Amino acid sequence: MPSLDFWYEFGSSYSYPAAMRIDKQAAKSGVEVKWRPFLLGPIIAAQGMTDSPFNLYPVKGKYMVRDLERTCAALDLPFSMPDPFPQNGLYAARLAIIGADEGWAADFSRAVYLAEFGDGANIFSKELLANILSDLGVDASSCLNEIESPEAKERLKIQTAKAQDLGIFGAPSFIAGGELYWGNDRLEQAVDQAAKAG
Amino acid sequence: MPSLDFWYEFGSSYSYPAAMRIDKQAAKSGVEVKWRPFLLGPIIAAQGMTDSPFNLYPVKGKYMVRDLERTCAALDLPFSMPDPFPQNGLYAARLAIIGADEGWAADFSRAVYLAEFGDGANIFSKELLANILSDLGVDASSCLNEIESPEAKERLKIQTAKAQDLGIFGAPSFIAGGELYWGNDRLEQAVDQAAKAG
Repeated sequence: MPSLDFWYEFGSSYSYPAAMRIDKQAAKSGVEVKWRPFLLGPIIAAQGMTDSPFNLYPVKGKYMVRDLERTCAALDLPFSMPDPFPQNGLYAARLAIIGADEGWAADFSRAVYLAEFGDGANIFSKELLANILSDLGVDASSCLNEIESPEAKERLKIQTAKAQDLGIFGAPSFIAGGELYWGNDRLEQAVDQAAKAG
Repeated sequence: MPSLDFWYEFGSSYSYPAAMRIDKQAAKSGVEVKWRPFLLGPIIAAQGMTDSPFNLYPVKGKYMVRDLERTCAALDLPFSMPDPFPQNGLYAARLAIIGADEGWAADFSRAVYLAEFGDGANIFSKELLANILSDLGVDASSCLNEIESPEAKERLKIQTAKAQDLGIFGAPSFIAGGELYWGNDRLEQAVDQAAKAG
């Protein structure tokens, strides 16, 4: 079955609509989605930036909010910016890596994004994450213990280094058939490329 | 007739595919395009950047080239990056403002973009610009004299200040029905909005 890698950061605003629609969009073309959470912060820092470009350049940040309002309205998704932005996606990303092994990464990630950009909630909250895990029938306290282990921390570091090695500099990004695509707007192209590459 | 404002910078790579397709795309929806050349440099400088983000962040710059190769291939447009990038669009922008009065701004701008991003030519060249003007049946030497006048310089400064006042921070940008859209990817949305706003 053809597949594509979906690289996403929980703090990233445009990863929200991408996460909400990618499985359906890919399924239409018979493409499987591999969910790859990573941290954008270290990659942005390596480029010499000290914050999200949307905060560094407020005019761009203001536009981004309006653009996302329109994008979410067109997709019938609720939208509310969290404060502060960007949210710290560290716990969620470590959890999603566990979820990728156990088959609940996609459902978990969508629930986190809906809380964050649908309700404007703070996702750097073990309580919120525990509720999401429990709703999915996952053992929340076991997972929340596990993400404090050296192994869980190391796995996210390795995944982030891999993203950087692949030339990823923003989120969401897609890798399909040897091509890198950046941005929610490129999802359709990435799916087509994955289907073509077979 | 419904209309939209097309704000473009001659040095901007993504303004190239937008310029090549906007008139046809808008005509399908009965929308008139108002061509508004401006300078992005002063606006980027006001945000504290000293160069194009594609040069400041080379990983992003490398991606941009590949993304444009794909975009241009899909549109059947030739593509070749000019060196250096970005090119200085000062003369071309002053000329296009004259062209907007005289009815040749769109043809002139497309020809400049084709030379720059189709052939990789240097557009900060009065010889190249003179050839383009002559091909359009425009009095090249008169126009090239006119762009050294205080009036021509002032008009471009005013146009650039207007872009900044409108919240424009990148190119291409579109303003339609009171909404700002940024990027070649938003052209269709801007045309729809213009048609809806009527």
